[in-house]
Amino acid sequence: MVEGRVTAAVLVIGDEILSGRTRDANSHYIAHYLLQIGIETREIRVVPDVEEEIVAALNALRSRYDYVFTTGGIGPTHDDITADAVAKAFGVGISEDPRALALLLERIKPEDLNAARRRMARIPDGAELVANPISKAPGFWIGNVVVMAGVPAVMQVMLDDVAPKLAHGVKILSETIDALGLPEGAYAAGLMDLAKAFPQLSIGSYPSLREGKFFNQIVLRGRDGDVLAAAAERTRAMLRGLD
Amino acid sequence: MVEGRVTAAVLVIGDEILSGRTRDANSHYIAHYLLQIGIETREIRVVPDVEEEIVAALNALRSRYDYVFTTGGIGPTHDDITADAVAKAFGVGISEDPRALALLLERIKPEDLNAARRRMARIPDGAELVANPISKAPGFWIGNVVVMAGVPAVMQVMLDDVAPKLAHGVKILSETIDALGLPEGAYAAGLMDLAKAFPQLSIGSYPSLREGKFFNQIVLRGRDGDVLAAAAERTRAMLRGLD
Repeated sequence: MVEGRVTAAVLVIGDEILSGRTRDANSHYIAHYLLQIGIETREIRVVPDVEEEIVAALNALRSRYDYVFTTGGIGPTHDDITADAVAKAFGVGISEDPRALALLLERIKPEDLNAARRRMARIPDGAELVANPISKAPGFWIGNVVVMAGVPAVMQVMLDDVAPKLAHGVKILSETIDALGLPEGAYAAGLMDLAKAFPQLSIGSYPSLREGKFFNQIVLRGRDGDVLAAAAERTRAMLRGLD
Repeated sequence: MVEGRVTAAVLVIGDEILSGRTRDANSHYIAHYLLQIGIETREIRVVPDVEEEIVAALNALRSRYDYVFTTGGIGPTHDDITADAVAKAFGVGISEDPRALALLLERIKPEDLNAARRRMARIPDGAELVANPISKAPGFWIGNVVVMAGVPAVMQVMLDDVAPKLAHGVKILSETIDALGLPEGAYAAGLMDLAKAFPQLSIGSYPSLREGKFFNQIVLRGRDGDVLAAAAERTRAMLRGLD
């Protein structure tokens, strides 16, 4: 446990991601968003629409991280089983929530509120609702688990709703340094020396190819701006010495 | 265990994905690719560049699925620790592999083969190499775990190298049906009836919004083309009845 550190996991629920049908954009969005408010995402998992899989992943993740953010599986169809799985993971009951039902009725006419749509008002006992200004059907928050929709636009407004209520860590700062077209092998030894000299920083090298040429970047991350600036200066000097 | 079913997990290794810096394109590519050759991806995990995390995830996944495909962490820098973590997970030694070294020397001049670059020739004992026609440094395959690079172009050629050697399941077929602009709540009950009538199929509803309007799709998936066609026809008839 690092002081000032708040950790999170993202649990993406949905067969459509695992089949390669849908590209999961949510976990990237959430990780990026959380980092801006000082919360570190330490794990992402994608599991199918299978209750025992969701329960097992949820229990593994909620015991390890300060927060778990789930996406997907809270709509009206038979494969939307997230709310029941969350209730099971927490060992609590689940029933139709009058607050959630009232929200649904802001958008759905009473005569159109069929059994399937009413399922979206099923909320585990003791959960707080998460607002959904777009399509009204709420997410919820129970213990350290925040349950959100899978549709990106809806997930994003739900995250906006919970963000102000989250415990924030000390914001993580970063410096990205272009590796001047050098291959990783040329600067790996220098970078290892830097990692040893600045153990309080996370130092990564991210190789990529652009038009067949190396376009590598070095990223330094940490909570102390002065330490970060000193390390960045030493990194740049190290690279200039190799160029 | 379903007969003819071959399962896989993808393990993405890298702080850069968890920080939201880099968008993971590999797991989507792999899931889609595997489905085409009859292998079902059942779980995706993203873990940081921390040995104990990689070992724990690897051991959890390799015991549950027929194959595990990892990406990332096999370059020359200090944060590239995947090969060591895999050796540890399997309880085997790791050393410089003459075959891997020979491959590196196809691209790197002997005088440029420094200690950092030589690390890319470290391969767990008993592993087979996976070819990398792009930048030569190989991946490897040990037990049911295939270890590939994180750079997408390199990962993709490595996957091409291993694909013909994998056990393939019966190819999964799918039908995607537009929900005619209907909201999920309108067809959820009908879809649940269909799911009960065709228990051998996976039936999902995938909501999305386009320009503020519902653009939902229903996807039916299974191994028997005749069953799939019959279910698709019933789905279309059900939707037409609601339109």
